[in-house]
Amino acid sequence: MYRTHTCGELRLADAGKEVTLAGWVQRVRDKGSLVWIDLRDRYGITQLFLDGNSDPKLIEQARTFGREFVIQAKGTVIERESKNPNMPTGDIELKVNAFTLLNGSKTPPFTIEDVSDGGDDLRMKYRYLDIRRNPVRKNLELRHRMAMLVRNYLSNLNFLEIETPMLIKSTPEGARDFVVPSRMNPGEFYALPQSPQQYKQLLMVAGMDRYFQIVRCFRDEDLRADRQPEFTQIDCEMSFVEQEDVLNTFEGLAKHLFKEMKGLEFDQFPRMTWHDAMKYYGSDKPDIRFGMKFVELNDVVKGKGFGLFDNADLVVGINAEGCSEYTRKQLDQLTEFVKRPQVGAGGMVYIKYNTDGTFKSSVDKFYTPDDLKVIADKFGAKPGDLMLILCGEAMKTRVQLNALRLEMGNQLGLRNPDVYAPLWVIDFPLLEWDEETQRYYAMHHPFTAPKPEDEALLDDPTKWSDIRANAYDIVMNGVEVGGGSIRIHDRTLQNKMFHTLGFTDEKAQEQFGFLMGAFEYGAPPHAGLAFGFDRLCSLFGGADSIRDFIAFPKNNAGRDVMSGSPAPIAQEQLDELQIALNLK
Amino acid sequence: MYRTHTCGELRLADAGKEVTLAGWVQRVRDKGSLVWIDLRDRYGITQLFLDGNSDPKLIEQARTFGREFVIQAKGTVIERESKNPNMPTGDIELKVNAFTLLNGSKTPPFTIEDVSDGGDDLRMKYRYLDIRRNPVRKNLELRHRMAMLVRNYLSNLNFLEIETPMLIKSTPEGARDFVVPSRMNPGEFYALPQSPQQYKQLLMVAGMDRYFQIVRCFRDEDLRADRQPEFTQIDCEMSFVEQEDVLNTFEGLAKHLFKEMKGLEFDQFPRMTWHDAMKYYGSDKPDIRFGMKFVELNDVVKGKGFGLFDNADLVVGINAEGCSEYTRKQLDQLTEFVKRPQVGAGGMVYIKYNTDGTFKSSVDKFYTPDDLKVIADKFGAKPGDLMLILCGEAMKTRVQLNALRLEMGNQLGLRNPDVYAPLWVIDFPLLEWDEETQRYYAMHHPFTAPKPEDEALLDDPTKWSDIRANAYDIVMNGVEVGGGSIRIHDRTLQNKMFHTLGFTDEKAQEQFGFLMGAFEYGAPPHAGLAFGFDRLCSLFGGADSIRDFIAFPKNNAGRDVMSGSPAPIAQEQLDELQIALNLK
Repeated sequence: MYRTHTCGELRLADAGKEVTLAGWVQRVRDKGSLVWIDLRDRYGITQLFLDGNSDPKLIEQARTFGREFVIQAKGTVIERESKNPNMPTGDIELKVNAFTLLNGSKTPPFTIEDVSDGGDDLRMKYRYLDIRRNPVRKNLELRHRMAMLVRNYLSNLNFLEIETPMLIKSTPEGARDFVVPSRMNPGEFYALPQSPQQYKQLLMVAGMDRYFQIVRCFRDEDLRADRQPEFTQIDCEMSFVEQEDVLNTFEGLAKHLFKEMKGLEFDQFPRMTWHDAMKYYGSDKPDIRFGMKFVELNDVVKGKGFGLFDNADLVVGINAEGCSEYTRKQLDQLTEFVKRPQVGAGGMVYIKYNTDGTFKSSVDKFYTPDDLKVIADKFGAKPGDLMLILCGEAMKTRVQLNALRLEMGNQLGLRNPDVYAPLWVIDFPLLEWDEETQRYYAMHHPFTAPKPEDEALLDDPTKWSDIRANAYDIVMNGVEVGGGSIRIHDRTLQNKMFHTLGFTDEKAQEQFGFLMGAFEYGAPPHAGLAFGFDRLCSLFGGADSIRDFIAFPKNNAGRDVMSGSPAPIAQEQLDELQIALNLK
Repeated sequence: MYRTHTCGELRLADAGKEVTLAGWVQRVRDKGSLVWIDLRDRYGITQLFLDGNSDPKLIEQARTFGREFVIQAKGTVIERESKNPNMPTGDIELKVNAFTLLNGSKTPPFTIEDVSDGGDDLRMKYRYLDIRRNPVRKNLELRHRMAMLVRNYLSNLNFLEIETPMLIKSTPEGARDFVVPSRMNPGEFYALPQSPQQYKQLLMVAGMDRYFQIVRCFRDEDLRADRQPEFTQIDCEMSFVEQEDVLNTFEGLAKHLFKEMKGLEFDQFPRMTWHDAMKYYGSDKPDIRFGMKFVELNDVVKGKGFGLFDNADLVVGINAEGCSEYTRKQLDQLTEFVKRPQVGAGGMVYIKYNTDGTFKSSVDKFYTPDDLKVIADKFGAKPGDLMLILCGEAMKTRVQLNALRLEMGNQLGLRNPDVYAPLWVIDFPLLEWDEETQRYYAMHHPFTAPKPEDEALLDDPTKWSDIRANAYDIVMNGVEVGGGSIRIHDRTLQNKMFHTLGFTDEKAQEQFGFLMGAFEYGAPPHAGLAFGFDRLCSLFGGADSIRDFIAFPKNNAGRDVMSGSPAPIAQEQLDELQIALNLK
């Protein structure tokens, strides 16, 4: 071993000990006859010390050490004269009596400090240096700890972690697969799993009863910000359970994580139907750390001669408490915000409920103070509040108002990353109409069971949008961190579902034949859930980006700029695989 | 929840309780007014019972249940009249008062019993039924338990599990990569990792100090029996360590697994140099559960007129104790065995040391009884023993004799799967000459460090075969379960190594540039090891095949016969990827 201790463990009680440390030179402070070196490793920083009593050769040697040099230092632990209460090793320092240079370092392209001077691109290219920085290191440590907690919790509940294959069959339904040409079976391809969905259901048919896996999944999507082509799920499935059992089990897991990672305890997580989530928050993942629930205004705003409202499918708003002093400029900025293409609203109406009880609105022309009072009452607004109103086609308007609500939450500091507001969103629609392809898609996936009371609606295509699924999402702070459903375990119902989704028998057989076949041999009732592990880590780490919680992430073009992948491959490789490039 | 208890948990103390069970019908025994059903789930079997007092409709219903039907049964736990001490629930049965059929089943294509009537192919096609069988289920349970033990052990030693990318850069060195076309970067490909080697070394450069990962790896090899295109490693790396530290750390892990899984305790694992392993066992993974060490005979057999021995590079044999009574037929079979193409020996010489002290050999023509006594003494043989001797080019002959030794071990029952003999094989050669391509290859991989005392030999190409590496394998019962090495952390030495391996600077830069670049920014001394997790599980499970310990394995053609993968993909998928089939 190159060391007797790590750079994070020596304390005052160790004073007098002869020890050997190894690590990276964080900085050298040279005051002539006094030299200090901060030596860093994963566990902390220990101060090395040389003074007039030290061998002058040691001082000379220390002066050759640049930032990020890897050195070994032997010496005696001594009590510091001026202690540093901000670091765990701050009571001591190491009086060095020998150095060994283990490896030099070029000057790093950015500073290895909590706040670095390196830009995103540079830090990605030198990710191995970025990881040396405390914030990134801590993220990876958090991720490890989370994974250990999850595994031990689920294992204690009799869940078995079972590894499912990575080289599977391509299923065009859903997102785009990454595919892998098979050299041994020319012309044929494996796919990388978008999730182990079918395999975990097979494991239930196989009687494994409770399965989980922290597993890599792959989606060849056009990458939006903060999406990765490969990502990690906590994938779970259980047999002989109903929705209530699944919610309780994984709420238990979430509470365990909150307790162990954050010291936070929760009562039962609130539950909200998808319908209410859309109606009151315009989102299937409402951030309930703050209020500003939507208030629908059709009954109080129509018929006053304001054409925009009169003709609107829905007039709906939020009440921003205490914001009546918003300036013209601030209101203009909010209007700009909702009119951005990403939000897409036509405009915004505001009503200020001034502290003196008067009203000031952008629609004073159409509404009397009494009218505005009625609207304010509908909002439950008080003097000092600001009402913000959008209108248009109902669903679109809700989604726009959701963006405005979140923006107001940000502006008012209501979205504190240290506050956690978990929520179950339940009763998702089973099917979703797609305008482009003019067909219904499974909102969750084709194996999701309809609510038994809605099952009969499958026979009436005009009612398909009304069918509710036994599907649920777990949402925290406006982020969907997991979701799942009760699965169809009955082959007849599954066939009906495939027909609803426009699959011919042949197509269903080709795509899902082996799962359907398995269901004929005693499939138990089963259900499952998957957490987005990257997302869960970022949430617990109080960060917005999942990229910070992945050791070696890819950029938005799916590239790893550090290793330079993807890259062209040799012609011999293509030949062996019996494929050719066919570049447009 | 569809049940109050599992089928494995009810005991006599539960008698009188009203419970609900759910599971699969293992068998129905119908004796007219008495009906028994064995109900099975992952946790066990509970006997359900109906008698003359039961509702006749229940008995009728029970008679409709076929094998593998999924049912729910409510009833009262009662004490059995005739107890079954062989099952944990054997003291009780469930007097049923209601059944619910949860799902029917077609008759399974093979019996769901410990010993099934289904052949390998059939059981693979219906793997989800095969997993219902106890032996397969137990293998997967063992695998889960092993993984949990490994993770908790390493985590407690400050190892962090860090997920490395699956979509990486192709590196033609080593085995063949599986590649993944990148749609977003047409003409470019990712590779699936053969191991996270470079990433784990980068994590050491990144200061993560101790890394592990139970990780899927991929090799597009022509599959020999019991190789899988995707397999799982326990992949580990440590900084600031020397070989002794690595061996101790992972010997600790292995001992922990033996203790927890098997109740076995070990002293320090023996160590053997690669040179000795080859010399005395003809294998770099000797099975030391039994003796029969090789005895080299050149000095006692040459010059007696037996041309085959006189002209041989090496004459070497083993002594099979107590086998002097082997019949002519048995000896002929052994000769046939070594002459098989898989072994490749020209023939075999035997010397029987009869119990009466006389000798009988296949070379009596050339050797007097006194000569044979000298040979026998060299072997340390006693009356009653049988000496088996091969000759030829030294290394080839050793490898042939290894096959014969293992065969004798099998014949004599010396390879008991319940006996474990772990061993470190150390000091592997750094380089291996390849006749076909007329160049040296890294025996381990290009990042393995030579022993410091042999480093100078890199400057003399005639000595390259003599260079020993700081590389080590952990071997159990003749199976290599893991291996690793001290890594080169110095860029100059690494460059020299690449040149030795015939890489131009450009090629080395193209292939490994990012790792080489990283090494310029303060790479610590580091080392690692990886266990083959599938193999380790099969060894702890007392089985020969890794396939039995993988939930959904592939066959020797890399096919999953259950799901039918690989398979052709749609033309649109090929078009999107800008590749075309180019079938020969």
